[in-house]
Amino acid sequence: MSRRRFLVEPAALDGPEARLDASEAAHARKVLRLNVGDEVWLVDGHGRRAKARLTSLGKGGASCRIEAVERLTPLRPRLVICPGLAKGPAMDFLAARLTELAVDEVRPFLAARGEVRLRDEDQRLERWRRLAGQALKQCGAPLLPEFFAPLDLEALLALAPARAARLILYEGEDGRAMAQVLAEAEGPAEVWALIGPEGGFTAAEVDRAAAVGFTPCGLGGVILRAETACLAVAAVARFGAQNFDAAKMHS
Amino acid sequence: MSRRRFLVEPAALDGPEARLDASEAAHARKVLRLNVGDEVWLVDGHGRRAKARLTSLGKGGASCRIEAVERLTPLRPRLVICPGLAKGPAMDFLAARLTELAVDEVRPFLAARGEVRLRDEDQRLERWRRLAGQALKQCGAPLLPEFFAPLDLEALLALAPARAARLILYEGEDGRAMAQVLAEAEGPAEVWALIGPEGGFTAAEVDRAAAVGFTPCGLGGVILRAETACLAVAAVARFGAQNFDAAKMHS
Repeated sequence: MSRRRFLVEPAALDGPEARLDASEAAHARKVLRLNVGDEVWLVDGHGRRAKARLTSLGKGGASCRIEAVERLTPLRPRLVICPGLAKGPAMDFLAARLTELAVDEVRPFLAARGEVRLRDEDQRLERWRRLAGQALKQCGAPLLPEFFAPLDLEALLALAPARAARLILYEGEDGRAMAQVLAEAEGPAEVWALIGPEGGFTAAEVDRAAAVGFTPCGLGGVILRAETACLAVAAVARFGAQNFDAAKMHS
Repeated sequence: MSRRRFLVEPAALDGPEARLDASEAAHARKVLRLNVGDEVWLVDGHGRRAKARLTSLGKGGASCRIEAVERLTPLRPRLVICPGLAKGPAMDFLAARLTELAVDEVRPFLAARGEVRLRDEDQRLERWRRLAGQALKQCGAPLLPEFFAPLDLEALLALAPARAARLILYEGEDGRAMAQVLAEAEGPAEVWALIGPEGGFTAAEVDRAAAVGFTPCGLGGVILRAETACLAVAAVARFGAQNFDAAKMHS
């Protein structure tokens, strides 16, 4: 059952019938071996999920009758992960794994020690969205993260709202633990976390972020590879709260 | 500097001189472009680290004069991650990433829905150790995790000491949050966490673990791929505590 998920456009859940395109239909037939009459789940990546039943299934596509639509409760905190732009495979890895961790937004930035520009920006954004869609179907996360084109650090810092817990991950001498900073924020509704590229932030980058209200904090003195750090930060922010009031189940 | 780390046998740090083998020496010459007189760090993967200086460097190996040896404070909690045995690439991924997260022991087990045996057991264990060694040099973690051959679930359950916080990750209807369970254990000195294979645990497996004292708990209703779940669990156990008393910096 859990693997019978299909990603559809949000508008597809508004009517009584939804279409699956040829590639989704092929997956249903050849991999999942589904037949007309079988139950499936349709997810729109924007917080809605529908129980549906296959009414036709062929080479050109498939149709489903929608039986019930539910809106999934958004997870708390709202989670914005900002990785220093890295090379292709690292970013691809993050696109999929951060989707599983129910990250709301992925906003790469151009770090002093990271990649300084994204080649084929539109294609790469499209690629991250496609990988995220695959991860979403696999894991059943309620939302596709929203992916943004990389910005300069300064522009990114200006975007983060003051109401959010704003963190910059940095292993300084007298660093505070990320979990402690979040606990002192008393279950923030929104978290923005900046994670440096391989090689880390420069001191100037950390000073600049701190000057506009970001809190430098770390992960207990362990030095992680950049992608692992992104996952660890997302996991601690998403699941480190001590009860389900703060980290609410979504259904 | 951070990349000038070399992994040596523990005994190598007992004397005034340490040898690097031919492959480490080649890495020092060709990749790091080091010369005689340069400072390096030697890590033994068992909690000791030495500052040293290259005294010779050639095709057959290298020598270093040891200048200072320090013993790194073990991180708390002691962390034992038990993944359902998975296919090769997933286990390789875990070997490296769990090393970065400073996991103390990796104890795979044979899950009902996972791989039911390990081919070439000795070779695979050797491979995991080699990948862990590479990750350790890269990230500077104090310890190599100890890798164990897979056991039946029953044998693994019997091994976990009652003094440890013993968790089985399971998304039941009335599941409790993993972070809550750990908080109620008040900063346990040791955590054992069982993470199911792709497809999850069977109810019988969860019942059996609960019967011997494991606490079923989850990650807030999000369903993760098995490897991502292992990393998230390790990150929450390692870094989710709210202060550095519980998650102590190691140097």
